[in-house]
Amino acid sequence: MPAHDSHPFDAAVALDAAGDGVFRGRTHPLWSNMVGPFGGITAAVMLAAPCRDPRRIGEPLALTVNYAAPVADGEFTVEATPVRTTRTTQHWTMLLRQRDGVAATASAVFAVRRDTWAAHELPMPAVPAADEVPPTLRRAPLAWPERYEFRFVAGPWPELSGTEAGESLTRVWVRDEPPRPLDALSLAAIADVFYPRIFRRRGRFTPIGTVSITTYFHAAAAELAAQGVRPVLGCAQGRRYAGGFFEQNAEVWGDAGVLLASSHQIVYFKE
Amino acid sequence: MPAHDSHPFDAAVALDAAGDGVFRGRTHPLWSNMVGPFGGITAAVMLAAPCRDPRRIGEPLALTVNYAAPVADGEFTVEATPVRTTRTTQHWTMLLRQRDGVAATASAVFAVRRDTWAAHELPMPAVPAADEVPPTLRRAPLAWPERYEFRFVAGPWPELSGTEAGESLTRVWVRDEPPRPLDALSLAAIADVFYPRIFRRRGRFTPIGTVSITTYFHAAAAELAAQGVRPVLGCAQGRRYAGGFFEQNAEVWGDAGVLLASSHQIVYFKE
Repeated sequence: MPAHDSHPFDAAVALDAAGDGVFRGRTHPLWSNMVGPFGGITAAVMLAAPCRDPRRIGEPLALTVNYAAPVADGEFTVEATPVRTTRTTQHWTMLLRQRDGVAATASAVFAVRRDTWAAHELPMPAVPAADEVPPTLRRAPLAWPERYEFRFVAGPWPELSGTEAGESLTRVWVRDEPPRPLDALSLAAIADVFYPRIFRRRGRFTPIGTVSITTYFHAAAAELAAQGVRPVLGCAQGRRYAGGFFEQNAEVWGDAGVLLASSHQIVYFKE
Repeated sequence: MPAHDSHPFDAAVALDAAGDGVFRGRTHPLWSNMVGPFGGITAAVMLAAPCRDPRRIGEPLALTVNYAAPVADGEFTVEATPVRTTRTTQHWTMLLRQRDGVAATASAVFAVRRDTWAAHELPMPAVPAADEVPPTLRRAPLAWPERYEFRFVAGPWPELSGTEAGESLTRVWVRDEPPRPLDALSLAAIADVFYPRIFRRRGRFTPIGTVSITTYFHAAAAELAAQGVRPVLGCAQGRRYAGGFFEQNAEVWGDAGVLLASSHQIVYFKE
């Protein structure tokens, strides 16, 4: 395992402070997607800005990222504005800018978690333990999936052979590759590692692009630290597909059966 | 049925143009909640601003509203900024301001829908038709629930007698009261009509407040128009409850079995 500060994830979310709430970053070739960087790493870097701002209080609770235009390879700035602070929450808005304008907008809420009544509504799905599931050989001709180890329990990368499927459920054990202790930033990226559900439904490649993703962080920092470098269980499924857009929902569970995060996204597709 | 322009919903989302992207509105006593207005009407009025801006193209696709502070009774402005327009989407950010600062931030994506491959992932739940389910007598000592007719199929307003429940599922036929033809603005409000899931789980009143809600609009304007004034089926369920926050997910179905919208929210609770 490399030292934390040389991990490719940390390299990709590195930001240089450049004045009140302004941070400079750059895309990282190890995280490239079909066009521009993996959406999950863009989400993580936008969340990183308020996380690194000295005015920030509390831990990430909610993050919405709107992908307004492709992020071009190279430099960008993230402008983070603290809008309002209450006793238990702090609200931020962010803009990711490149030379030709705003590429993404975002909002984040940070929270001071307290000891309260607690419950899960539904248990973690019953699946074999991660070490009983073989890692999948890489299949996508892209850089970013190499940054993760995937152990698919259900719904692996589809064959894209033209056979439609009735549903799109995926269950997969996933961790950073090489291993890296889980934190809210890496969880923000992991919440978006699920291939587009339409690939499985249609059984063929369809040009797509996430329009907007919202991630809710359900675990306190201590719970994330307790998860460490062990794989988390990701579950993802599509919802309605119509008019060139579909919704995709995901849950990320810790291996102790605790819901760490959920994410919801609306995705553009062509044809 | 009153004329469209005198309906209490239209009165509550009425905005006066006050310069580039700036709109003036005011809270409406018929929509008041425990503190300030019903969150769903605040979401609708923030979406109304770009809808009424002459620069807006397309139909609502995604809306995120972050409730940063209670909205005080009285006047407010909504500032709507068109951030980026692509061939198929237009991205906006919004701020709701009152005298003492920003009370809510929001982002919206509008889309030009096209004729594409289409599918549902899961069918609408099998429930009795709306006219086979009696409307519920009002139980909440609040104004805004009177603006809707609720016909509960499952999970009605809980007794708050102290008996905990294992799950929080609600299924309810709902429409504006008095009836009003469905559109994206009224759907944005209906996506938030589900009482806090923690009331059902704990079987007692718990002080709560929505922190952030994201609604995805799955239906084109023509589908909403076809629904007209007939009740829609709302389904809502909670997820993890911990550290003073819980997630609540909802779906709104047209009576023809089409998913009209989904909503996801993270809610603060005390103790």
